Amino acid sequence: MREYLDQGRKTVDDALEELMPREGSRPSDLVAAMRYSLFAGGKRIRPILVLAAAEVAGGNARDAMFAACAVEMVHTYSLIHDDLPAMDDDDYRRGVPTCHRKFGEATAILAGDALLTLAFDVLSDSGSDSNIVAKVRIMMIHELARAAGWTGMVGGQQVDVASEGTEPDLPTLQYIHTHKTGAMIRCSVLLGGFASNADDALINSLRTYGERLGLAFQVVDDILDITSTTEELGKDQGSDASRGKMTYPALFGLEEARERAAELIHEAKTALISVSNKDRLTGIADFVLKRRL
Amino acid sequence: MREYLDQGRKTVDDALEELMPREGSRPSDLVAAMRYSLFAGGKRIRPILVLAAAEVAGGNARDAMFAACAVEMVHTYSLIHDDLPAMDDDDYRRGVPTCHRKFGEATAILAGDALLTLAFDVLSDSGSDSNIVAKVRIMMIHELARAAGWTGMVGGQQVDVASEGTEPDLPTLQYIHTHKTGAMIRCSVLLGGFASNADDALINSLRTYGERLGLAFQVVDDILDITSTTEELGKDQGSDASRGKMTYPALFGLEEARERAAELIHEAKTALISVSNKDRLTGIADFVLKRRL
Repeated sequence: MREYLDQGRKTVDDALEELMPREGSRPSDLVAAMRYSLFAGGKRIRPILVLAAAEVAGGNARDAMFAACAVEMVHTYSLIHDDLPAMDDDDYRRGVPTCHRKFGEATAILAGDALLTLAFDVLSDSGSDSNIVAKVRIMMIHELARAAGWTGMVGGQQVDVASEGTEPDLPTLQYIHTHKTGAMIRCSVLLGGFASNADDALINSLRTYGERLGLAFQVVDDILDITSTTEELGKDQGSDASRGKMTYPALFGLEEARERAAELIHEAKTALISVSNKDRLTGIADFVLKRRL
Repeated sequence: MREYLDQGRKTVDDALEELMPREGSRPSDLVAAMRYSLFAGGKRIRPILVLAAAEVAGGNARDAMFAACAVEMVHTYSLIHDDLPAMDDDDYRRGVPTCHRKFGEATAILAGDALLTLAFDVLSDSGSDSNIVAKVRIMMIHELARAAGWTGMVGGQQVDVASEGTEPDLPTLQYIHTHKTGAMIRCSVLLGGFASNADDALINSLRTYGERLGLAFQVVDDILDITSTTEELGKDQGSDASRGKMTYPALFGLEEARERAAELIHEAKTALISVSNKDRLTGIADFVLKRRL
């Protein structure tokens, strides 16, 4: 699985390089900031999920690559904006200065805006190296917009920021997890299915798999924030806790958080029970549970 | 023309109300901020251009309405982000506190993000009340993404912010005008043409019209920043000048700026010379030149 993920990361990086504005394109500081954050060493889990789901659904990973790249652009924009002083005010990510620390706040805001917009540019580019027909593309664009916007990720981030320092409660925590992280992970899996014209039954299995995987991903993230060293994290250890973030371990403790993550991964894998050639998706689920950064 | 614009504004407002999340939808502060800025009394020039171009191209304004609303969402997001402390740091717009002054910076950033994303949600919603086919929708999404992103509006805003306080020069000023304002105005006109399946010749005429109109719009904006009172502007009078913004009057003086605006409007109208039923588009061009806020 490690090898598959490494290979996937390289393939995605190459495709992103093709789709991104070249270094030095005008406005050069904006383009530099977009590239800095997009090529900061992300694990590319979301785009790999797009490609893996496309293959499980019997399609061609190549046809789904533009969607994989779009998802990673949206993810990167969300990190840039989340790190801003008005939001999480983080100085480091993946061991290097955050976008606004490196390029200033104005450029960081605009680089995020530009990456979000570029995702839709890429998804709607009929000149792209993909055989996906217009009708399916439209479905994919709609799925991404719903997962990324006020009905999904942005809504989750809003509640996350607003609930800092408040008394943790399960409904709010579930809202944050479902929307902030869950929506984009589920969307990644669905885009792969759509790209391969998966039938309704398979789409439903992929939806449940993506949903549980997304929740598990956030629970594991919350655990790692506590149990990892600052060096491993590439940002301050325990920053969620010290900021009064609403997390699963904060509400239920580490032990129960670990059990919950394992349970969610089990549910994700169970959702694929009647799906053939599912090894890559179940392998990614196992990886999410066991990952040490 | 005034009556046509008033009527258009009402029709667009009604359609936006249909497409926007209802007041009180969760997260309620995010939704309130999105609605606050979107319904802050904008003139709706861009969506009216979409509808007018659709009619001139022989189509149905109703089919183009979702595109008109998408353009206004993108415009509103850009105003929210431009007003942020890290950018233009404006406290008032249209006579009321800017989004971040009213809702805080984090919510304002996210409300902008959400409006931008909602534009693509709306454009790709196959359940929308429009007969436009998937292939044309994809073209429209792509046009909007190019006009709004690093190749258009965001690129222009980046250069605008970066050039504050520097010695004005014409190439930089032209870059800012073409990208920051021009791209979205031209896009609005083109989306109307696409929505009505305009042929290549008409699309070319509309493109030139939109391009000149967009440049004129920004020159007039720059002039009004100097010649209007703070009350008329709804924000501080002369704020561009005091901030060292690169504007047409700053480079050439008021007199030449006025001549340039008239010349651009003349060129916009000339581009439609062989187009029939163009009265609304030429009327809007005249309005842009003569508008007092």
